[in-house]
Amino acid sequence: MTTAPVDVDSARRDYAALVGRGLHLDITRGKPAPRQLDLSAELLSLPNGAHTAEDGTDVRNYGGLEGLAELRRIFAPALQVPVEQLLAAGNSSLELMHDATVQAMLSKLPGAERRWADEPRVAFLCPVPGYDRHFALSARFGIELIQVPMTETGPDMDVVERLVAEDAGIKGIWCVPKYSNPTGVTYAEDTVRRLAAMTTAAPDFRIFWDNAYTVHHLTDAEPELADILALAAEHGNADRVFVFGSTSKITFAGAGVGFFGASQANLDWWSALVGKRTIGPDKVNQLRHALFLRDEDGVRALMRRHAEIIAPKFAAVDRIFSEELGGTGLASWTKPLGGYFVTLTVPEGTAKEVVRLAKEAGIALTPAGATHPHGEDPADATIRIAPTFPELAEVEEALRGVAVCVRLAAAERA
Amino acid sequence: MTTAPVDVDSARRDYAALVGRGLHLDITRGKPAPRQLDLSAELLSLPNGAHTAEDGTDVRNYGGLEGLAELRRIFAPALQVPVEQLLAAGNSSLELMHDATVQAMLSKLPGAERRWADEPRVAFLCPVPGYDRHFALSARFGIELIQVPMTETGPDMDVVERLVAEDAGIKGIWCVPKYSNPTGVTYAEDTVRRLAAMTTAAPDFRIFWDNAYTVHHLTDAEPELADILALAAEHGNADRVFVFGSTSKITFAGAGVGFFGASQANLDWWSALVGKRTIGPDKVNQLRHALFLRDEDGVRALMRRHAEIIAPKFAAVDRIFSEELGGTGLASWTKPLGGYFVTLTVPEGTAKEVVRLAKEAGIALTPAGATHPHGEDPADATIRIAPTFPELAEVEEALRGVAVCVRLAAAERA
Repeated sequence: MTTAPVDVDSARRDYAALVGRGLHLDITRGKPAPRQLDLSAELLSLPNGAHTAEDGTDVRNYGGLEGLAELRRIFAPALQVPVEQLLAAGNSSLELMHDATVQAMLSKLPGAERRWADEPRVAFLCPVPGYDRHFALSARFGIELIQVPMTETGPDMDVVERLVAEDAGIKGIWCVPKYSNPTGVTYAEDTVRRLAAMTTAAPDFRIFWDNAYTVHHLTDAEPELADILALAAEHGNADRVFVFGSTSKITFAGAGVGFFGASQANLDWWSALVGKRTIGPDKVNQLRHALFLRDEDGVRALMRRHAEIIAPKFAAVDRIFSEELGGTGLASWTKPLGGYFVTLTVPEGTAKEVVRLAKEAGIALTPAGATHPHGEDPADATIRIAPTFPELAEVEEALRGVAVCVRLAAAERA
Repeated sequence: MTTAPVDVDSARRDYAALVGRGLHLDITRGKPAPRQLDLSAELLSLPNGAHTAEDGTDVRNYGGLEGLAELRRIFAPALQVPVEQLLAAGNSSLELMHDATVQAMLSKLPGAERRWADEPRVAFLCPVPGYDRHFALSARFGIELIQVPMTETGPDMDVVERLVAEDAGIKGIWCVPKYSNPTGVTYAEDTVRRLAAMTTAAPDFRIFWDNAYTVHHLTDAEPELADILALAAEHGNADRVFVFGSTSKITFAGAGVGFFGASQANLDWWSALVGKRTIGPDKVNQLRHALFLRDEDGVRALMRRHAEIIAPKFAAVDRIFSEELGGTGLASWTKPLGGYFVTLTVPEGTAKEVVRLAKEAGIALTPAGATHPHGEDPADATIRIAPTFPELAEVEEALRGVAVCVRLAAAERA
């Protein structure tokens, strides 16, 4: 990115005016807005007396590690997992990713020579920019985080293939394959195929496939994601993939249902361990969700109403950045077709300063660096914008303010 | 226990008649009966549109690791944990005990020299008879299980004190202090005080205090349990205790709320780790529970209605065993004042045979040995009776059948 000269004095004047307005705006996290949560208001009185699953199970009592079939059936197509290989679990997918890591640390994975806790070294590939909670989760277990560049088609597969082929310490890769957090990229078919087919030095390599935004379209484009479980099986790597998903940004964030999908060998491993942890998930909440969502079309209709609320906010990001920063060469930003984030790229070495300036002006942004392992973006150039939670007018106001900060940081640095 | 001679022929005739009836009865697990679950029917349409916690939190969205204050306040007295030290979590307490073990395995506990995964040996004391899921959970992590006899006042404290004083590999003890599973014993004040005060060779010794039945009275006797967190703090061992509890047998089994209580140092340790796992528990379900239970008196009133349903089943156990086995010297059984179980003690070496005979007669019992680590009761004399789930008539029929099996097993062995 080439940067045009910015007039320092006018940038300072604009920033002083911004600070003078005494804003209190927050675009830090990918949270649904209250109006989005209102779309699922029915859940607040469901199952409305019902307590029997389609197979006759009393959902109020113990049992049923795999979760309700009627709910798993609704999400199997979107998550591209055969229903018999898909488990419906607790209230988040992050905890399933955590527990998959824990179980791999403490019990030999199918195909593993030893449990990860006994390995001299465990490393994960981290496509960057990526999701801070993934990286923090791995780091908490002492897992080494190796950065891999994201491209327009997913992780740079030349780098990935080379690393996993030569380094048996690399045990996994973090992927958000659809509308990736935070770039919005959907992995190309070739990327998915190469991930499924590549040779790994580690016999127990796992792809942590966090398909968090599979039905979270902002437009009618709806790019297709290749079926990684099927491709992995086709290439003799059936046990390579752990699929995760949840209803967190479909119904209620934190009061939804998480899903785990994998090969039968992985599921047997998983269930034997998880069966020591729990007598089963909250089946009442699963019944509640099945009754509310009904079927795939029910999910699709609901997601269209979400898009009606949040697409204008994403449009505002693009419009305001275009108006304020277009043609300056100071910034580029993604125009995602789905998901929850926009990635703003600013001149190298200025992202932290932009976030600091914004904070002083009353605009909370996700910390610069959060998109990289250990919170350190080597180029200090990436800022994640999360426009869903605030009202549209607030998003617009916040982003005009951010643009002022981008111009000032660039000017001061020049 | 001295055993009177049993007439083999009449025992065989009785058993043949029992088998001839072709029963299908199940008294295996401590599950609430459907009529008990009906007591919480209101939960099936709550929170009925409400979605705001008392502190203004939107329970439909992310956040709030500690759980809702209004729900923690209801359970703090029963669990004897100050509300600010009590967390409300997911849908079970078993998973909290599991996760506490995992976190201790993988991250140094307050006071620990190293994480348990790096210890040459980790052992837990297991008062027997005890709860099979506790033992299975520890065994899954390679933790050595050391049996300690249960007495009428709790674990044999002379044994406990001696073992923990000399063996730094002993890192914990499993306790169900109120209406213990399966003996029904409530720990005496002196037992609790000694647990709180005793000297342990391990600096990171933890009492896993599973207060599962704290409000689960069957009579008006309601024995008091001493406050272990307070006693431990008094004796300079504030970090020794992890308290667990849940609403599983208060509202819905599996769709309730679990609780974790401990010292501030333990909570800080816990929250830093759990914060990597989740963005928060299902707060909608917590609000649902707070609205339904209202306060301590609400819980008390609900538990009285539970007792109305299950106390007659426990009375039937005592009545039928008295009628069928009283005075024979063949068996003794507990007469619990609360909780979910009766322990039946049969002549040494016959418990497995009783369970086998019962199974062949169509009566499913918890496997003999389940009350002991690794499912092995050295005396082969303990059978756990779980009378809550079946209807009263079924309980009576099943227990008369069990008595027939006890007599036959004893006669065949004589």
